[in-house]
Amino acid sequence: MDTYKPVPGPLLAKISSPHDLKKLSAEQLQDVCDELREYIIDSVSVYGGHFGASLGVVELTVALHYIYNTPRDKIVWDVGHQAYGHKILTGRREQFHTNRKYNGLSGFPKRSESEYDAFGVGHSSTSISAALGMAVASDLNHADKKVVAVIGDGAMTGGMAFEALNNAGAQNSDILVILNDNNMSIDPNVGALKEYLADITTSKTFNKMRDEIYDLLGHFKSAGEKMRKVASKLEKAVTAAITPGALFQALGFKYYGPVDGHNVDALRRHLEDLITVSGPKLLHIVTVKGKGFAPAEREQTKWHAQSGPFDKITGKTLSKPKPKENLPQKYQDVFGDALVELAEENEEIVAITPAMPSGSSLWPMMNAYPDRSFDVGIAEQHAVTFAAGLATEGKKAFAALYSTFLQRAYDQVIHDVAIQKLPVVFCIDRAGLVGADGPTHHGLYDISYLRAIPNMIVSSPMNEQELRDMMYTASKYNEAAWSIRYPRGRGTGMEIRKQFRDVEIGKGRVIEEGDSIALLSFGPIGKYVVEASERLKEDQIYIGHFDMRYAKPLDTELIDSVLSEYDHIVTIEDGTKLGGFGSAVAEYVAEKGVGVSVKILGVPDQIVEHGTQRELHDEVGIGPEGIVAEVKNLLGIKVA
Amino acid sequence: MDTYKPVPGPLLAKISSPHDLKKLSAEQLQDVCDELREYIIDSVSVYGGHFGASLGVVELTVALHYIYNTPRDKIVWDVGHQAYGHKILTGRREQFHTNRKYNGLSGFPKRSESEYDAFGVGHSSTSISAALGMAVASDLNHADKKVVAVIGDGAMTGGMAFEALNNAGAQNSDILVILNDNNMSIDPNVGALKEYLADITTSKTFNKMRDEIYDLLGHFKSAGEKMRKVASKLEKAVTAAITPGALFQALGFKYYGPVDGHNVDALRRHLEDLITVSGPKLLHIVTVKGKGFAPAEREQTKWHAQSGPFDKITGKTLSKPKPKENLPQKYQDVFGDALVELAEENEEIVAITPAMPSGSSLWPMMNAYPDRSFDVGIAEQHAVTFAAGLATEGKKAFAALYSTFLQRAYDQVIHDVAIQKLPVVFCIDRAGLVGADGPTHHGLYDISYLRAIPNMIVSSPMNEQELRDMMYTASKYNEAAWSIRYPRGRGTGMEIRKQFRDVEIGKGRVIEEGDSIALLSFGPIGKYVVEASERLKEDQIYIGHFDMRYAKPLDTELIDSVLSEYDHIVTIEDGTKLGGFGSAVAEYVAEKGVGVSVKILGVPDQIVEHGTQRELHDEVGIGPEGIVAEVKNLLGIKVA
Repeated sequence: MDTYKPVPGPLLAKISSPHDLKKLSAEQLQDVCDELREYIIDSVSVYGGHFGASLGVVELTVALHYIYNTPRDKIVWDVGHQAYGHKILTGRREQFHTNRKYNGLSGFPKRSESEYDAFGVGHSSTSISAALGMAVASDLNHADKKVVAVIGDGAMTGGMAFEALNNAGAQNSDILVILNDNNMSIDPNVGALKEYLADITTSKTFNKMRDEIYDLLGHFKSAGEKMRKVASKLEKAVTAAITPGALFQALGFKYYGPVDGHNVDALRRHLEDLITVSGPKLLHIVTVKGKGFAPAEREQTKWHAQSGPFDKITGKTLSKPKPKENLPQKYQDVFGDALVELAEENEEIVAITPAMPSGSSLWPMMNAYPDRSFDVGIAEQHAVTFAAGLATEGKKAFAALYSTFLQRAYDQVIHDVAIQKLPVVFCIDRAGLVGADGPTHHGLYDISYLRAIPNMIVSSPMNEQELRDMMYTASKYNEAAWSIRYPRGRGTGMEIRKQFRDVEIGKGRVIEEGDSIALLSFGPIGKYVVEASERLKEDQIYIGHFDMRYAKPLDTELIDSVLSEYDHIVTIEDGTKLGGFGSAVAEYVAEKGVGVSVKILGVPDQIVEHGTQRELHDEVGIGPEGIVAEVKNLLGIKVA
Repeated sequence: MDTYKPVPGPLLAKISSPHDLKKLSAEQLQDVCDELREYIIDSVSVYGGHFGASLGVVELTVALHYIYNTPRDKIVWDVGHQAYGHKILTGRREQFHTNRKYNGLSGFPKRSESEYDAFGVGHSSTSISAALGMAVASDLNHADKKVVAVIGDGAMTGGMAFEALNNAGAQNSDILVILNDNNMSIDPNVGALKEYLADITTSKTFNKMRDEIYDLLGHFKSAGEKMRKVASKLEKAVTAAITPGALFQALGFKYYGPVDGHNVDALRRHLEDLITVSGPKLLHIVTVKGKGFAPAEREQTKWHAQSGPFDKITGKTLSKPKPKENLPQKYQDVFGDALVELAEENEEIVAITPAMPSGSSLWPMMNAYPDRSFDVGIAEQHAVTFAAGLATEGKKAFAALYSTFLQRAYDQVIHDVAIQKLPVVFCIDRAGLVGADGPTHHGLYDISYLRAIPNMIVSSPMNEQELRDMMYTASKYNEAAWSIRYPRGRGTGMEIRKQFRDVEIGKGRVIEEGDSIALLSFGPIGKYVVEASERLKEDQIYIGHFDMRYAKPLDTELIDSVLSEYDHIVTIEDGTKLGGFGSAVAEYVAEKGVGVSVKILGVPDQIVEHGTQRELHDEVGIGPEGIVAEVKNLLGIKVA
């Protein structure tokens, strides 16, 4: 099954680059769209992936590559979930079955993968900034390259998209922003911008009203000089009012639309026309996420990403039915359940998510306490400072963010939370190597970038129970901020004690005593140490294992006792080796100048690509084999 | 002079809290404003400080404290430069002469300083998020507290302000955003939003046109049923069009204004009226930065901050005339000059600043190469990704940011620059303790947060010459990103060689060999080591000194030779001790497990307040005395 490739339709089969697409007549484009959509569904129904977004932009993708001279002209896909069709049309159809697999295609546009991928993406709201940079460079180079940014309505709520609009709108560079309005980010979009766009796109009487008003004005103009003058002013005002894109016009963009994003012919003609329009311009298209695949059109959040395989007609999952009760709970669900339980007891607890209630498992809280749960949209910066504002008034704010997205709010964590010692709790999901989403989504830096900040506890539980208990302890702590990191995926499957208990701050625990080598682990990655320890015992090698729990404050008492009993320390974390947990141990030990070595295991100082989490852990040497090898290496034992 | 306090006017003298202000009649408020303005000028003309912004909001400040029930109601000042009047009215008049001094008042609102300071600020664009958090908390607590955010037009271009508007506009919480439109941030404001606001506020015919149009519509309505219906629709459209705040209305805010921000009576009445309006609302006021002080009104950028003393009538500086040629050049100017020289030779070089052309000394470049220089507004995130976009097209982008503001673009540095190995050069000004601006502006985390990122060189020159040469070396390096950090303030005053030379990547240099203790310094802080070394020689103590230049890649060869010759290593950096340069050395040394200790000198894991740079360096033990003490301590010598 790993080598299954869908059979392309007759037109698609002949397209191995946009050059081939351009040979077709405009009348054939809808057929290409149908074949492309079918191909995506065929592939994702077997291999999984994000495809709702890609199905929504099939027509746009075909029209863009038909009209623009890619790769010379630049198409920047915001976030990039929607680029499957783009990949298939730009020479990667035959590799598309490797999408998101180890050593396979990336799930996102990626510059090193194809010259057609103008800008690597993954996080939202970057496309307009990058496209403006390209457009300005083209001006400076007198290159006359066309530059297009394609951005969803969800990504448009991210602050940096606004910064870019504001800057682009005041420049003369040619840039086309296509606002792909499907009224959805991963979770239902929230915020005023959504309502604004909905007003534009749902107004049935819009065109009719416009005609009537212009009739009326014409009537006026023929009624004498004074009337004519006023009517002329009126016309100007009315034009501004009834142009639906007033928001974008206020920011200096020429606004076009809204246009049906599933009419490839209309899109083609609009794009052709817009090439002759200079300066910053925005084309507003309306699409349906999951278009052409009924189950995905119906349930957009569920079908944002699918791990497949599934029945491509009904959408029913075809994976071997693992009984749910035998699978360990995901960490995100442990978090989600514990939060509700804590919120029941403590009415000051509130929860904040920037547009990820599903990914962060915040739905239980949102359902139980809708008034105390806030989905603020794709707006990490706002999310954190909003949480800080809540904290000033005595609320116990739990901010749930992915590690990689918290990077967006780094300044807010420092400036608005830490400096003011506000006791916000950061529940950092997807910490560590995340797997198929790859480099843009790995959460590798949070230990380092949070440890550097004063008034911030940096913790990670080794298992589900500890996650619950840390959340409980953090919920009662009001001296400073607290971060709790946990990885993507499932826990250990341990039996969970419902009653909460404190996890003493700054205290690790002994898992196992051993001989000369002590393994200090931080977080769930400790499970690999347990596994390695078992294997090493077969060779009569006994390592000590310490679950440190806190990278800050560090349990120096425990480290002191380790230093007095062991010759070597090995630290392990699911994060960068530089400046993180291991570094904290090295700082402490190095100052002592004792003859105990500290070897840091973690993610090396390089970009790690995508694959399964286990493949990646093994690749960078933090899986059980890597630990075993490191221990044997320290003992001078040659590893076969 | 350090104890000079201006004499308050008769009304101001009686105001030691807003409670006293409220006892006055509305008619007396203008007099209070005049006295308050005078007091601020009197104080800043002697002691220096940011005052243009504060003079611009004197009337607003008085009106707000007159109408609102502070500190129960919350006023959140964005950035906070404008809060001098607020401080003086809220019980801090007698301490105001200590403003920005060591152990004195903060130059910004600060929660730990006063219960009237609802939220600590310093960076821009945070106020709406924080205020919304407070408003929501008030709702949850059924507290009915009023919440006001005061934000400038410059800060409004920051993306997080937009995120907050978008979120607030979709909620029902009572929040009043006051847009203080002075058409200025520190440097002249740029971007489409500025033009939009200017359109609103400069339209002289605006009110006249509105009247004419409504007359006309009335005429229509009386002309039959069909006409009436159309006219009614027309009226709705026209209302939207001629309401100047369409942009804010699109985001769900009720818009009021523009209002003259120097008419305290009008402000008072508007604020009173708005208390009865529920939901999110925006009051647009127009003010003049530096209002009431003619030199500041004329030259707003120059008068953004003044170090004083100056003549309070003419604005002429009164400080003892130090001949400029005898003062060492500031690092920022060394950067600014070198950039132009490099740009002369390499036409691919472009420069980007987020609204800080003066602070970053980018004016020489902007004057010499306006087409290759980009002030993108208060928009750090956009600035970095815009630079990345330029880099994809072969441009050599120099992004000039303060260390503390680069925190705002941390994700963009990772996601858009480092992951894609784009060779953007980050010139990081104000790195380290910055002095009077205090905790929100200290640049303490950049070494740690940048070192954690792959494809990023982390460097710092010890002097002006090395800064120039590092910029030159970085300008030719295209393998990855490069960061060069340098502090606020003046260099060593060394003679500068105009011709550029390479600084070998990852190589430090020996300043001086010594006996048992090696000092490894990173950046200009090395000057203190030189000073300490001289003092220690008087006691026949000879330390080695190594200018490491690079925190990444680390010069491990040099460290190996240090390890073989010295018993103790002391590292020193002007940044946090956690995860930075010293940590890099500790990681390397700890892995070796040799008996050489590594003592890290740097800023401890706590918030450092404001003062002069030297006061703060001494406080945290990284001044010459701290180094001497540490060396003696390692040698077992009791320090008196």
